[in-house]
Amino acid sequence: MKPFIETSSFRRLQELSRHPFDLPSGLTPERIATMAISGVGFQLLYGTERVTPEVLDALFALAGERDVLGQMVQMQSGAILNRSEGRAVLHTAMRDQFDARQTAPMAQEIAEKAGRELQKLETFLDRVEGKYTDLVQIGIGGSDLGPRALAIALQAFHRPGHRVHFISNVDPDDVHGVLAGLDLKKTLVVVVSKSGSTLETLTNEQLVRARFIKAGLDPKHHFIAVTGEKSPMDDPEKYLASFYMWDCVGGRYSATSMVGGVVLGFALGFHGFREILRGAHAMDRHALTPDNLPLTSALLGIWNRNFLHYPTVAIIPYSQALLRFPAHLQQLDMESNGKHVDLGGVSCPFSTGPVVWGEPGTNGQHSFYQLIHQGTDVVPLEFIGFCKSQYGSDLEVEHTTSQEKLLSNLFAQSIALAVGQNNENPNKVFLGNRPNRILLSERLDPFTMGALLSFYEHKVAFQGFIWGINSFDQEGVQLGKVLATKILKQFSGPRLREAAPPFPLAESYLKFLED
Amino acid sequence: MKPFIETSSFRRLQELSRHPFDLPSGLTPERIATMAISGVGFQLLYGTERVTPEVLDALFALAGERDVLGQMVQMQSGAILNRSEGRAVLHTAMRDQFDARQTAPMAQEIAEKAGRELQKLETFLDRVEGKYTDLVQIGIGGSDLGPRALAIALQAFHRPGHRVHFISNVDPDDVHGVLAGLDLKKTLVVVVSKSGSTLETLTNEQLVRARFIKAGLDPKHHFIAVTGEKSPMDDPEKYLASFYMWDCVGGRYSATSMVGGVVLGFALGFHGFREILRGAHAMDRHALTPDNLPLTSALLGIWNRNFLHYPTVAIIPYSQALLRFPAHLQQLDMESNGKHVDLGGVSCPFSTGPVVWGEPGTNGQHSFYQLIHQGTDVVPLEFIGFCKSQYGSDLEVEHTTSQEKLLSNLFAQSIALAVGQNNENPNKVFLGNRPNRILLSERLDPFTMGALLSFYEHKVAFQGFIWGINSFDQEGVQLGKVLATKILKQFSGPRLREAAPPFPLAESYLKFLED
Repeated sequence: MKPFIETSSFRRLQELSRHPFDLPSGLTPERIATMAISGVGFQLLYGTERVTPEVLDALFALAGERDVLGQMVQMQSGAILNRSEGRAVLHTAMRDQFDARQTAPMAQEIAEKAGRELQKLETFLDRVEGKYTDLVQIGIGGSDLGPRALAIALQAFHRPGHRVHFISNVDPDDVHGVLAGLDLKKTLVVVVSKSGSTLETLTNEQLVRARFIKAGLDPKHHFIAVTGEKSPMDDPEKYLASFYMWDCVGGRYSATSMVGGVVLGFALGFHGFREILRGAHAMDRHALTPDNLPLTSALLGIWNRNFLHYPTVAIIPYSQALLRFPAHLQQLDMESNGKHVDLGGVSCPFSTGPVVWGEPGTNGQHSFYQLIHQGTDVVPLEFIGFCKSQYGSDLEVEHTTSQEKLLSNLFAQSIALAVGQNNENPNKVFLGNRPNRILLSERLDPFTMGALLSFYEHKVAFQGFIWGINSFDQEGVQLGKVLATKILKQFSGPRLREAAPPFPLAESYLKFLED
Repeated sequence: MKPFIETSSFRRLQELSRHPFDLPSGLTPERIATMAISGVGFQLLYGTERVTPEVLDALFALAGERDVLGQMVQMQSGAILNRSEGRAVLHTAMRDQFDARQTAPMAQEIAEKAGRELQKLETFLDRVEGKYTDLVQIGIGGSDLGPRALAIALQAFHRPGHRVHFISNVDPDDVHGVLAGLDLKKTLVVVVSKSGSTLETLTNEQLVRARFIKAGLDPKHHFIAVTGEKSPMDDPEKYLASFYMWDCVGGRYSATSMVGGVVLGFALGFHGFREILRGAHAMDRHALTPDNLPLTSALLGIWNRNFLHYPTVAIIPYSQALLRFPAHLQQLDMESNGKHVDLGGVSCPFSTGPVVWGEPGTNGQHSFYQLIHQGTDVVPLEFIGFCKSQYGSDLEVEHTTSQEKLLSNLFAQSIALAVGQNNENPNKVFLGNRPNRILLSERLDPFTMGALLSFYEHKVAFQGFIWGINSFDQEGVQLGKVLATKILKQFSGPRLREAAPPFPLAESYLKFLED
C-alpha cells in the first residue's frame, strides 16, 4: 500500500484544491439535498463543505488506495494495529454482544471476556440495588472524559436515587469539592486504572479512602476496582468487586468497557448501559460498509486538513446535554492522531490530527462565533443536532418551541458560515466559505449516544488509516511523567506550604534544570 | 500612529523571527530566573518562550510605536474606543471603587453609577438574607460564561445555604435539567440581558416563569432583572428588583458589573464580590504601568501569532476550580479579536485573534497533550498555577502532597515542552521548542480571581491596540441571528414534533435557500 502522499488520489486532490468549491455562489437546495448520507438513525449533511462531486470521488478513491475499509475489518477482527505496543485494537469487541458478531478468533475471545464482565456487572448492580445513592468514579483521561461526557449527556435517563460524580485531577480541591455533601455510608467509589499505577488516580484513591476511614467506614464495603487482570489493583482483599479491562482497549476508546460500564450502569440501570452498547455496535457494523457515515466525515476532514490546510476543527453540539462531549472528542482525536511519525517511524511530511475544540450551540453563537464568522483564520465546524428534546418539556413562545429555535439557529449558522454576506460597511462583511457539516438524529438517548460515540471513534481511526500513523499509542504523554517524578523529588514538604512571592517553587523549578 | 505592519518594530521582529530562540539547546536556570516579571501577587515566567532579549526589546518598542499604554489610559478614562458603535469602554469603572481613582469625567460618572448599583446590591442582599437557598441566573454569552466560571472557581468560598445555578442554552433540556430538584419557593431567578431582547434569555425566562406559576408562586417575588436602563426588561411591575448595566460595558467584559454582581454576591456575600472587584482594580492600575504583566503576555502572544505564525493558544490552569475559566477566555479573546478589518475598515493583511481553547491540568496531560508534544503543529500554551490549594485539605502520599504533585507536573510539562527529548525510537522523539509561559500566584481566592480576570481582559485589549482593530464590537454574531429568525418562520409547529429520518427539518432548511 502506498503512503498517503504517494497515492495518485493525493496528487489529484492537490490539483482540485487549487479551486475549492465556492459556497457563496454555489449553495443551492439541490446541493444540500444531494450531499447527504444516512445510517443508524443519523443523517450527515455536507453540502456546506467546499467539495465538488470530483473531490468526493477523489476522496473515496483515496480511501480505496489506502484500503481503509480493509483496515477497519482488520481492526474489528483483532489484528495487531497498535504496532508500537504490539497490541490488537478491540474496543468494538466490548459491544459485539448482539447480532452479526465478528468471527475472527481474537475478536471472539475478547467479546466473550467482555460478555462475562457484563454479566458480572448485571449481577453486581442487582446485588447493590437500593443500598447506595451515590457513586464516585476516580479516574483520569480516558477513565474520566468519556464516561463523564456520557453520564452528563444521559442525565435525563438517570434512575432516581442514583447520582454519579467524578474525581480526576490530582488537585486536592477536586476531591474536596466532590465529596462535600455526600453521605459516604451510601456511596460507592469506582477506582479506574488499567495499569493500576496512575499517579493521580492512586493519590486520589488514598485521599478518598482516608475520608471513609475517618468517617468510621470500612473502604472494603465501598470501593470497586476497574483494572487490568493481575495489575497491582487486582486485589480482592481491598475491593468489594473488581471488573477487568484489557490492553487491546485504549483508555480513550474505553467508555463502552467496564470503564464506563460500572458508572453508567449504576446511573442508567444495566439495560440503559446495554442500549449504549447496542447503538455503538450498530455503528461499528455500519463502519464496515462502503460509503459509511464516519468514513465520509473522515474524508471531509482530510480535505479540510491536508488540502485546504485548516489547522483546527470545532465540534458544536446544539444540545446542552452534550456539554462535555467535545472534551471527550478532543482527547479521542488529539491523543489518537496527534502524531508526527508514520507507522514506519518516518517523520510525516504532511499535517496529521488538528486541534479539536468546541462548546454547545446556541451558546457559542454569543461567544467565539465572532472569530469563526469574521476572523482572519478559517475554522471548519462539525455540528451535531437532534430533532426532539430529551425531556419533551417545552413551551411555545411566539409560535415556536425552544427546540425549534435551537434547530433554526443550527441551520441558520450552517448557511451563514457557508454563504456569508456582502455589505457596504466593512464591519458587516462576512466572507463566507466557512466549511461545515451537520450530523442530525432524532433524539439523544442511550442508543443514539452509543452510535455517536462509535461514529467519532471510527472517524478518527479512518483518518489514522489514511495518514498511515498509529492512532492507538500515546508516547507523547510519557516524557512529562518522567520529568514530573524528578521534580517531585526536589520538593521537600515544608517548602511548598510556606510559599509566597517570589515563589520558592520557582527555585525548585530552576534547580531541576541543573541536573 | 503607524499601522502594525508599517512600524519599524514589525520589520525588526520579522527579521528576528527567521531564527527564533532554540529552547532545547538554550534553556538554563539563569534564563528562567531572568525572564520573569511580578505584580499584584502574580509572577509571569516566560523563559520557556522562544524569545531573546532582542526580541523582547523589539516587542516593547512595538508597544511604544503603537502607544498601547496611551490607549490603555484612554480606555480607562472613557474615550470612545468602540468606534463602530460610538461607545466608551469602561468595564474598569465597575471596580474603580477603591483608592487611586480615575479622574476623567466619563470614567468618574460611570464609576459613580456602578457604585450606586453596588450599594443597591448590598442592601438587596441584606434584605433577602435567609429567605432564599438557591439562585438561578438566566443569561447567555457574556451574561453566562464569566459569572459561571467565577462562581465555579470560588466554590470553596460560597456561603453555606447559598447555591447558584445557570441556564443559558435555548435547548429546553437546559432549563429542565437545572430546575429539577430546586425548591422554587426559596429560589431567586436573575434574568440578564443588556438589550432586554436576547432570544435565548427571554425564551428561557418564559419557560421558568411558567414553572413558577404552575407551582402556585408569583414570579414577582422571585425574579430580578439585570438590564440596561429603559430596556424592555426595565419594568418594576415584573421584577422584585432591577440592577443596571451600560453600553460602555460589553457582555464579555461584564463579570464585574451587576451581571456577575448579583449571582456572585449571593454566593460569596457582598464582601466576597467586593474582593473580586478589589483584585480586578489592582490589576487595572498595574496595567497602566510600563512593562506590566498583561502587556508582557500580550506581546509574547503577538510574537507567537504574527511572527512564529501559530494559529491557536491553549490556556491550561493547573487548578480544577478554573475548569470553566478557559471557556470564558475563549469568548473574551475570540469575540474581541476575531476581526478581519482594522479600525479604518481596511482588511487586515496579518493574522488577528487566534483560536483559544483549554482544559485543566493535570487532566489534559492524559488527553490532548499527546498532540501538543508530538503533533505536526505547534500549540503555544499559557499555564496558570497556584502554590496553595483552596481548601487546604490535602494528604502526603509517598512524601509529597497532592498540591506538590500538581505543581511538579506543571513545571515538568513546561520544561518538557520546551526542551523535548531525543531517542533512537522515533516514537519517543519530542522535538521541543513548544513555547509556553506560566502565570503563578499563591492561592485562588476572590481577590486573585478578580486580578486574573482583569489580567486577561487587558491582555486581549493590548493585542487589539497593537493590531489596530476594534476589540469591543461583535458584528460577527449578527448575521446568524437574522437568518435564524427567517428559518424560524418556516417551522410550522407540528412539523418538527413529528420528525423522523429523512428529517423534514432538512426540508425546511432547504426551502430556506429558495427565498
